[in-house]
Formats: sequence, structure tokens, C-alpha cells
Amino acid sequence: MRLATIATPEGLRLHVKARSGYVDVAEATGDPRMSSLHHVLCSGDAALDAIRGLQDRDGREVSLADFGPAVPTPPRILCLGLNYSEHALEGGRAVPTWPDAFVRGSDSVLGPYDDLVKPALTDKYDYEAELGIVIGRGGRYIRAEDALAAIAGFVVLNDASCRDWQRAGSQWTAGKNFVGSMPIGPEVVTTDEIDVSDLAISSTLNGTVMQSARTSQMLVSVPATVEFFSSFTYLAPGDVIATGTPGGVGFARTPPVWMEPGDEIEVTVEGVGTIRNRVIAEKGAPSDWRWRPTDTKAAGL
Amino acid sequence: MRLATIATPEGLRLHVKARSGYVDVAEATGDPRMSSLHHVLCSGDAALDAIRGLQDRDGREVSLADFGPAVPTPPRILCLGLNYSEHALEGGRAVPTWPDAFVRGSDSVLGPYDDLVKPALTDKYDYEAELGIVIGRGGRYIRAEDALAAIAGFVVLNDASCRDWQRAGSQWTAGKNFVGSMPIGPEVVTTDEIDVSDLAISSTLNGTVMQSARTSQMLVSVPATVEFFSSFTYLAPGDVIATGTPGGVGFARTPPVWMEPGDEIEVTVEGVGTIRNRVIAEKGAPSDWRWRPTDTKAAGL
Repeated sequence: MRLATIATPEGLRLHVKARSGYVDVAEATGDPRMSSLHHVLCSGDAALDAIRGLQDRDGREVSLADFGPAVPTPPRILCLGLNYSEHALEGGRAVPTWPDAFVRGSDSVLGPYDDLVKPALTDKYDYEAELGIVIGRGGRYIRAEDALAAIAGFVVLNDASCRDWQRAGSQWTAGKNFVGSMPIGPEVVTTDEIDVSDLAISSTLNGTVMQSARTSQMLVSVPATVEFFSSFTYLAPGDVIATGTPGGVGFARTPPVWMEPGDEIEVTVEGVGTIRNRVIAEKGAPSDWRWRPTDTKAAGL
Repeated sequence: MRLATIATPEGLRLHVKARSGYVDVAEATGDPRMSSLHHVLCSGDAALDAIRGLQDRDGREVSLADFGPAVPTPPRILCLGLNYSEHALEGGRAVPTWPDAFVRGSDSVLGPYDDLVKPALTDKYDYEAELGIVIGRGGRYIRAEDALAAIAGFVVLNDASCRDWQRAGSQWTAGKNFVGSMPIGPEVVTTDEIDVSDLAISSTLNGTVMQSARTSQMLVSVPATVEFFSSFTYLAPGDVIATGTPGGVGFARTPPVWMEPGDEIEVTVEGVGTIRNRVIAEKGAPSDWRWRPTDTKAAGL
């Protein structure tokens, strides 16, 4: 099953991919609360089963511009860094022996085909192709062997990063938390529909392949990632976990490659989907803003 | 004005400290939505002004055990690390030249007098006395000189940290995100009631002073902290910003001092309040859990 959140005259509403087009879930079930993916995920398997029955209908055609973020209001966005050896090494680090985690705010999410705003405060805006986990049942102390039952599905995301902000201190938070810097979508593909253990993952910038790897190269697998995060926190319905990016990002290239206005950045995970965003300049940012990292890594990273 | 969220037979409800005791805000205003601090903060100055008028009443006496987290459902908890020189130096680091930020999940919050659960998965549970900012109006690109108008008030908090989890990788997220590891309260003290630029801040463990400093020693001041975070994200009503801890934490002592079941940890910010939590052991954690950092700092921190 493939769940998309799509702009309608009544706002963003959950849809399911059907025999043709997409079916409006709330309309088809007669339950207005089902217009929200978050409500559906909080309602558990019965709600998902009700939606599953809509897939053999004929839905309406949807233009790409109408796709909203596949997870529009994630309670949390938990992220793994350095989860592919190649990406750790290209950043001048050893292959990690322990997961490096960070957190994004919910205002990170952006639609899968929306314009991606390059923040005015950065000169080093980089792409990161990633597979995202969408939590369903969730919980605490979820063992790897039980992880799949806690997951609702998977998405494609771009963990776009302001490298100057990310590396100005020892913690990556600022560079990973610019408003609207994480396109996500186009659909949440449910766990019964796809096995994500060995899928091709790639990014292209203006049509040139920049990253190309397989999810089987992750240092911490999807089930182990769920296990790890549930060691310390409750995973809740709708939480998103970004599973890290492969090698080939812009900052590690010679010369470095940054996303600039006019560029088109595309991320694909085989069988999950493709997101594609045009980069545009930020409008209306103050020109005399005090905070701006220098090129020097101030904290010695 | 001092706002507390207090357990009642109808659940946690917002109260205001009155001439005597505390007044139930929803009951006194006749507006059931006003039982939620988050609703009040989203409603703006008019709601706060309505509550201000209740302070000259006589309220009911409240026992310490009934105080809930002063901010029970923060949309986000943004945190500064290493914001006092002494604490940076005691951790073997240089005095930072750029703010180090991390994020806690909302499941971190704990009442100001609740039992503080020492996670079963840590041997290195440490205290951190901090002043917390509670965002009112919020916004983006908030200049330091306008920051006070974006803030609703201030709280005391303990940024309790599992040092083994915090330092196993390069990012501190895991060690700062154990469920219920951030006692917060007892009250949100509004900006019209207190100037936080130079207040005594301290912690005591079993009655012995462990940290003692002044908020004027912060490297990044409260207004500059708001400015910094608003560089990249929208600050929303009810967001909490933890402003960092002074020197004297447990891991930097010789020998190190860790919080253990039976201990009592107290944090005070002059004029804002005191929180006091008894440490208890976690019950029901799996005994054979796979994830457990070793004593060696795996990532070379």
C-alpha cells in the first residue's frame, strides 16, 4: 500500500494509491479524521486495513505539484549520521563503532516536488539521499526481530544540510534544522509492500549521479536502528527515522559541490520512490544577521 | 506571574500562583481550554493578561507531589551545550566559539518533585543545573533586542545525562534523550516578573553543593540564544530552550560522582525556583539488552 498526503481545496488530505490514481481516504471511508496520516497511524492496524480495501478503486489523477510531505506532521524526526562506511570515510572520520544520532524539528519537512529553499545564511548547502522509516505501532525496548511490526512503512528523503552550520561546533543540530530542509515522499510504502534490506539508493544533481549505493551497506540495519532508538525513547506513531546517507555528498568532492538556486536535486530509493526538488533562493532573510559561521571550523572538528 | 501545571482529579491543569495557594485557570476563567499551558501560550497576550487578573484571589493549597512538569507538552526542547566556560574546560574542551546545540524529545519532561528514574542501561547518570526559556510568541529571525518579547517565561530544569551514551559517539543525542530525564518546574515565571541576566544557579546532591554559578557567566546570553536558534528554525509557543549548565557536574569530578538510586538531586535558580527529585532504579528493563556503550569512548571523543 502506498499512502500519499495530497493538497486539495480542503487542505492536505491522506490518499491511497489505487488501481488508477489516488483515493481520498476520509471521503471514501466517511471518516473525516482519516484525512490525517498521523491519525491513521495512531489508530493502528484496523485503520490501515480499512484503507487497504480502497486500493482496488479508481481514484483521481494527481499532479506532482499537489503532493505534500508524505509525513506532514511527524512528532519527531530522529536521524542517524555516518551510517554508511564510505560517507564516514569521505568526511575524514573512522568508520563509527556506535551510532551517531541527531534530531530534526518537524518544520524540516517539505513536499517531494516542492521548491527547496537554499537558506540565505549558508554557502554550503548539501544533499543527502536517505531511506526513511515511518513508525507505526512504535514502543520502547523494541528488539530488532520485532522491529518490522513497529514500523508502518518507508519513505525517501533528502537530509539537506548546511555544512557550515553543521560543522561550526561539535554538534550537527543547527546545520540539520533549517526550516523546510528535508523533502520527504512521495509516498509512505507500507511494510507489507517492500523489503528494504537491499535496495539501490541514489541521488542526482542536475541529472548527474552523485550518490549510488545499496541499503544493504548500512552499518546499522533498519531493524537495529529501531532497536537502538528504542533503547532510550518511546517511538511513537508517525515518528520518522532518517537512516543516514551513502558516500558521494557535495562537501567531500574535489572541488566541493553545493546546491545552488536553479539546481535540481533528485533522490531515489528503488521501489520506494523518487523525490525531486528545484533549489531556489530564500527571500526576505535579513541581510545583516549576526549569526553566520565562518569557513574555519571553529570547534576544531 | 507564576504558572504551574498541577495534577487534579480531572488530570493536569494549568494553575496560577495567587495571593494564597494556586488558582485553577480554566475553572476561574470558565474556559476549559485554559487548562493547558500550551493553549494559553498559543493564544497570546490576551490569555496571559486574563490569567494575570486571577493572582489576587485566594487559591487552594497544593502539595509538592501534585506538581506536574511546568511545561507538560513542549513541541520542542532545544538545548545549548557548553554554555559556561568552566563546564567546557572541565570536560577537556576549549571554550567554544560557536554554540553547540542538541535536541531532546518531549518525553524527556518530568515533574519538579517526581522520582527521577536512573535508566537501567547506564552506569553514568549525571546532573546538569540549567535555566530554561519558555517560548511565548516565538518566531523566526528574532533579534536579541527583541527576544524578550518572544519569550513567555523561565523555568528551572535538570538536563540529566547518561554520559556513557552521550559520549559513545560524536553526537550527544542518545545520552540526552532517555525518557523522563529532564525534571522541569516548578513554575513558569513570566518575563515581567524576573530579570534572568544575573541569577545564582546551583545544584546540590544529597545536600552537598555540586554546582554554583551565575547566569551572567553564560557564553551565549538568553537573548542571543533565542536569536541563534531562530536563525534556522521557527520558535513556537511552548518550545523550551535549555541554556546549558555551569561547571561542577559529576563526570568531571575526581573520582566521578554519579546519581544513584536513593540520592536526592536539587537544582535552584535564584528567584525562579527549586526542583528536587529522588533518584530511583528503573523497573522492568530487559536484562539482556544489546545496546550498551562500553566505558571506552568508541568514537574517540
